[in-house]
Amino acid sequence: STKPLKKNSLFSNRGMTLEEDINESNAYYLSRNLAVIHKKPVPVQIVRVDYPARSAAVIKEAYFRQASTTDYNGVYKGKYIDFEAKETNHTSSFPLKNFHAHQISHMKQVEEHGGIAFVLIRFSKTDELFLLPFAALYDFWLRMTDGGRKSITKEEIENRSRSLKLGLSPRIPYLQAVDHVYF
Amino acid sequence: STKPLKKNSLFSNRGMTLEEDINESNAYYLSRNLAVIHKKPVPVQIVRVDYPARSAAVIKEAYFRQASTTDYNGVYKGKYIDFEAKETNHTSSFPLKNFHAHQISHMKQVEEHGGIAFVLIRFSKTDELFLLPFAALYDFWLRMTDGGRKSITKEEIENRSRSLKLGLSPRIPYLQAVDHVYF
Ligand SMILES: [Mg+2]
Ligand SMILES: [Mg+2]
Repeated sequence: STKPLKKNSLFSNRGMTLEEDINESNAYYLSRNLAVIHKKPVPVQIVRVDYPARSAAVIKEAYFRQASTTDYNGVYKGKYIDFEAKETNHTSSFPLKNFHAHQISHMKQVEEHGGIAFVLIRFSKTDELFLLPFAALYDFWLRMTDGGRKSITKEEIENRSRSLKLGLSPRIPYLQAVDHVYF
Repeated sequence: STKPLKKNSLFSNRGMTLEEDINESNAYYLSRNLAVIHKKPVPVQIVRVDYPARSAAVIKEAYFRQASTTDYNGVYKGKYIDFEAKETNHTSSFPLKNFHAHQISHMKQVEEHGGIAFVLIRFSKTDELFLLPFAALYDFWLRMTDGGRKSITKEEIENRSRSLKLGLSPRIPYLQAVDHVYF
């Protein structure tokens, strides 16, 4: 039997994490020779490894470490690209506790050396996605460390970001936003 | 058999692995605000995780995956930098089987997009270190895939590389060689 196409199923990200969507988009960009951008592996501290005879080594004890940098980096149009992806269930603001101080330092260093740093923020409830340049994020971060609010309002994000339309191929065409903001 | 992971002192005259030396050098460059270059975490496929009450999650089963890219990347003087570090106990040549085809493709893509790709090669027995630009590596790789020799002779490496003097701080001043070759 043929199932009716679910309403909005092509564009909805139900069942797909932001990370999966970005990985798919990066694979698309790579296959079209448009950019070379990869997710960094999850940092893990390996404590104990078994080497069974005639089969692959098995990690038997390891721990998640805090990432010292961001999720994604690579090269696009000769520029170093570095970004973090974040999702929130909040609807009217984005909490800054989603970032660690060392991630902010890292992105600041990247920009000081001529790289491009930004955040892709998804509001999960409404499936809205924004590219927030690091310069804007840093303003809000400093406002917080100066004693101000601990989040960015949705309106502030709308004003300082480039909104992304979700697509089919790639699902998250974030390089269009990069072109618009940085090139 | 189960072995705790420990520093592998066999591959270096000074009890430091090439990776440790490069990490130390990257930390130096970062602390002096000269470059933002990090080692990528080892890619691991996580199969089973325990969540003990009141303590950190423990990875109980995981496997090493083959890296799809290279060991290090980052930004230096506005350029995307991407490199692989390799050691050999050979004394008169460097075997190309140290590279996977996808690492070669990755470095080729990096250069096509305006990044800088190279290999740091250490001859462990003599503690000699060379920066071999990807363009040269690719010539030798193509010679092999065209049916030629499966290694690069030491003389060829000397002719096509920039030799690195080991130092104290940083221990591997490879950005000097990058300056010389690329800037
Ligand atoms: Mg993230
Ligand atoms: Mg290596």
